[in-house]
Amino acid sequence: MRKIIPRKIKGFRDSNPGLNSLKWHIINSAGTVYKLYGFEHWDTPVMEYADCIGKYLPEADSVDEGIYFFRNPEKENLFDDEGGLLKDSAGNFLLDNHFIALRYDLTAPLSRLYAEQLWDTYKRGQLTGNNAPLLRRYQYGPVFRYEAKLDPGRFREFWQLDFDSVGSADMGVDAEACMVLSDALEAIGLQRGSFIVKVNNRKIFKGYLANLGLADENMEQAILRIIDKADKIGKEGMILELGKGRKDKSGAEIPGLGLDDSLVSRITGFLDDFSHDASRSDVLTNLRSLSGGNIHLDEGIAELTEIDGILSGLGFDEDRVVFSPALVRGMSYYTGPVFEVESTLTFKDDKGNERRVGSICGGGRYDGLVERLLGAKVPATGASIGVDRLAELLTLTNALPQSQQGPVLIISFDAALKSEYMKIASELRSEGISSEVYYGLQKGLKKQMAYGDKKAAPVVIIIGSDEHAKGVATIRDMRMGAAMSADAASKEEWKSKAQVEVPRGEIAAKVKEMLHKS
Amino acid sequence: MRKIIPRKIKGFRDSNPGLNSLKWHIINSAGTVYKLYGFEHWDTPVMEYADCIGKYLPEADSVDEGIYFFRNPEKENLFDDEGGLLKDSAGNFLLDNHFIALRYDLTAPLSRLYAEQLWDTYKRGQLTGNNAPLLRRYQYGPVFRYEAKLDPGRFREFWQLDFDSVGSADMGVDAEACMVLSDALEAIGLQRGSFIVKVNNRKIFKGYLANLGLADENMEQAILRIIDKADKIGKEGMILELGKGRKDKSGAEIPGLGLDDSLVSRITGFLDDFSHDASRSDVLTNLRSLSGGNIHLDEGIAELTEIDGILSGLGFDEDRVVFSPALVRGMSYYTGPVFEVESTLTFKDDKGNERRVGSICGGGRYDGLVERLLGAKVPATGASIGVDRLAELLTLTNALPQSQQGPVLIISFDAALKSEYMKIASELRSEGISSEVYYGLQKGLKKQMAYGDKKAAPVVIIIGSDEHAKGVATIRDMRMGAAMSADAASKEEWKSKAQVEVPRGEIAAKVKEMLHKS
Repeated sequence: MRKIIPRKIKGFRDSNPGLNSLKWHIINSAGTVYKLYGFEHWDTPVMEYADCIGKYLPEADSVDEGIYFFRNPEKENLFDDEGGLLKDSAGNFLLDNHFIALRYDLTAPLSRLYAEQLWDTYKRGQLTGNNAPLLRRYQYGPVFRYEAKLDPGRFREFWQLDFDSVGSADMGVDAEACMVLSDALEAIGLQRGSFIVKVNNRKIFKGYLANLGLADENMEQAILRIIDKADKIGKEGMILELGKGRKDKSGAEIPGLGLDDSLVSRITGFLDDFSHDASRSDVLTNLRSLSGGNIHLDEGIAELTEIDGILSGLGFDEDRVVFSPALVRGMSYYTGPVFEVESTLTFKDDKGNERRVGSICGGGRYDGLVERLLGAKVPATGASIGVDRLAELLTLTNALPQSQQGPVLIISFDAALKSEYMKIASELRSEGISSEVYYGLQKGLKKQMAYGDKKAAPVVIIIGSDEHAKGVATIRDMRMGAAMSADAASKEEWKSKAQVEVPRGEIAAKVKEMLHKS
Repeated sequence: MRKIIPRKIKGFRDSNPGLNSLKWHIINSAGTVYKLYGFEHWDTPVMEYADCIGKYLPEADSVDEGIYFFRNPEKENLFDDEGGLLKDSAGNFLLDNHFIALRYDLTAPLSRLYAEQLWDTYKRGQLTGNNAPLLRRYQYGPVFRYEAKLDPGRFREFWQLDFDSVGSADMGVDAEACMVLSDALEAIGLQRGSFIVKVNNRKIFKGYLANLGLADENMEQAILRIIDKADKIGKEGMILELGKGRKDKSGAEIPGLGLDDSLVSRITGFLDDFSHDASRSDVLTNLRSLSGGNIHLDEGIAELTEIDGILSGLGFDEDRVVFSPALVRGMSYYTGPVFEVESTLTFKDDKGNERRVGSICGGGRYDGLVERLLGAKVPATGASIGVDRLAELLTLTNALPQSQQGPVLIISFDAALKSEYMKIASELRSEGISSEVYYGLQKGLKKQMAYGDKKAAPVVIIIGSDEHAKGVATIRDMRMGAAMSADAASKEEWKSKAQVEVPRGEIAAKVKEMLHKS
């Protein structure tokens, strides 16, 4: 008795050839742009020791929230702070099964890679001051988030496509991140004007909160997390969570931060003031009026000013990059400039409502992430394209018409002619034409034609024993056939146009002609 | 105090740009061949429910050996045999945390995908007889094996590149698998004659064992597992494990199967007889003399005979495909033809010893794998290229000289000129030339040049304030510089040849010229 139901893990999905074609179009187009900017392709494992990738997820208060993790089956040594092996009082090595986790992004593993490569240098005391080397890498692959409640169209495994510069404090790389994102999305096929790169700087809100008397790091993170949730819980929910707390739909109490009304309104006021369109220089002017001499605010403004200068000098104007001081990115590891790309395209959902796709890329500067692992401070910045999200956008908005072409199909009409069919397939392949002989279990012509249809076969070749004896083949142009079938006067007319008989020796030439015609 | 040591999980590795370039050269070259044969690109998740991918690993007696697995954090319904939801006596749904596992290959997930797509059809009773549809897919990605003892150069995460035809019993697809492997490896750059596709059929050894009175399925699997280990445990170890057992290096008892000496010598005799080079037709003749009318042996011989006919008809001769009745593939799910590609190239190991790379691809027919999940019998066959193994081979044997070219590097000589440097980089990029401004923390010219060297920058551009004032740039051809540095008479001579000064407006043209020269 079978007890197994064939099924995927909830929240995971298979990618069919259409989705894969879109996905790899995105990866290859953007990857080419990343390379053009001098980023090199590195890869890291899908799993990492949990302690090495830490806990930086939005809304995650403990290491186990949002992450798939388990104990490594291998027992391994425990370390002291210097990387030495711990022993018990009897002199035996202390062993344990360390926690390992599926990576939740590509940034934390990059920090591990960088820190691991420099670990010996650091231990020798040779990593001091500003001599950490520069690493510019890009990477793509699946990441994993265990979101307990999954929104429609979201998945627990999805692909990211990242580029990062580790070992650089230069605002040039932050400005460049905006340029790379903009160029990459255009290379993918998005029209200029259909998306916008938004830039903020963590230091600005940090300084603003400090001016309100809210300089505590934990309080700042807590406030950011609540603001980041505003999309989900609404502005009212946000105000309640900043203040006295609220009840969720199930009636459960969600405690608030306990800020008083005037503080809450100062915070929401800031967000409101900067939620309207304004030029980069107007935003900078408005921010300067808020500064009050706070060092964080001043630094943030200076950094944005430098980014503005670089972008303007290279022709990246307001139609591509704007400043959005109200922008919050979920990851808690950001320390400076943060980026988000918003698509302005809309689509109709199942109920016919006009909807926006929203955020498709994000990133920022994370000067503390490597330090946590390595001990030495190493500044870093980067950004990521959400591959699945972008593929969904391209599909929903028809922004990129995909013309998938399948293989030429040679019908298995007569088992005695199999070797002849295989020879024809082989001849076509030697001309670079994708082709296959039908090998399925269902032998009827209709079923074979349906198989060709499903795979978008552009051409089908039919040779029965009669044709074989006459030394000819019937070749059907499936795309012309499909286009005609609606208005052809008769089956005969349809056949005469969409289908031709050619001598055996001219099959390849005829197929080529049909493939190039359309 | 920090307690975290930056490290990868033992048995896992990072891929640097050189390895990635090799890996993706393999994937793209072979993928193009797979597509040429009509296979479509599908993907499945990295994780699956453990029960859906089962236990088919070599040497694995229980589901938890060799696999990374853990309990899904999500509680989910338990099913009855028909896929209905189980309830307790009080009418409450029964919930549990199901086991999920990192996939150990791409074949078991394909079976799950296929079975899941047909599950509703099957339940409606519409999947009867021979009407299962044909699915020809290729897929690549990482797979995971927890091997307790890891040989040097082997990893617990490695990439496979598979193609399979599900829903076909035709020996045409098995013959084709040999052709695809052969064509794909040549497309990757392996010379014909430097590798050989070996073919066997599980039915042959099954029939041979049945003729020895060993028709029991479990006994057959146990014998295959021991033969498969012969590489590791040696011929003597194999003989002992087939018979009375042996002690391993640590002195631990490894129980034997208890076969008597004459049976063991009949088994080793079969392996010896077929371990020598022989033509496909000679192998078939020898096998026919062993048949004794056993139905499995006869079927196996008939299938190999058909494969031989197809291959010969299409010009795939003994220099590319041979029959090897002694070939055993580890996976227990194979039921018919099995394939293995062996590289005949050798390399020198660390100690200077000549070594063979050995097996780089494998596959076979697995007619029972889908049935276990779906209920209906669906024949299938396919094969897999070991991407990491093949990349290692290409590296060790220098079979594929890689000429990696990094970005053009613009030295950050004078902070005041940053916007000028960025403009030059932008101009080069608009000509399709990969380029970057140096943004690292270490500002010295030497450190910047070392960075360029490490990234294989073909050209370096240097503009100081003097050059800027004169409206010129110094351009250094790094590859010519490297080639010359050994025999240049003087530093001046070296500089005069490897380095030129050009007007600001001619930078892009000069860089292009240098890139195309070498």
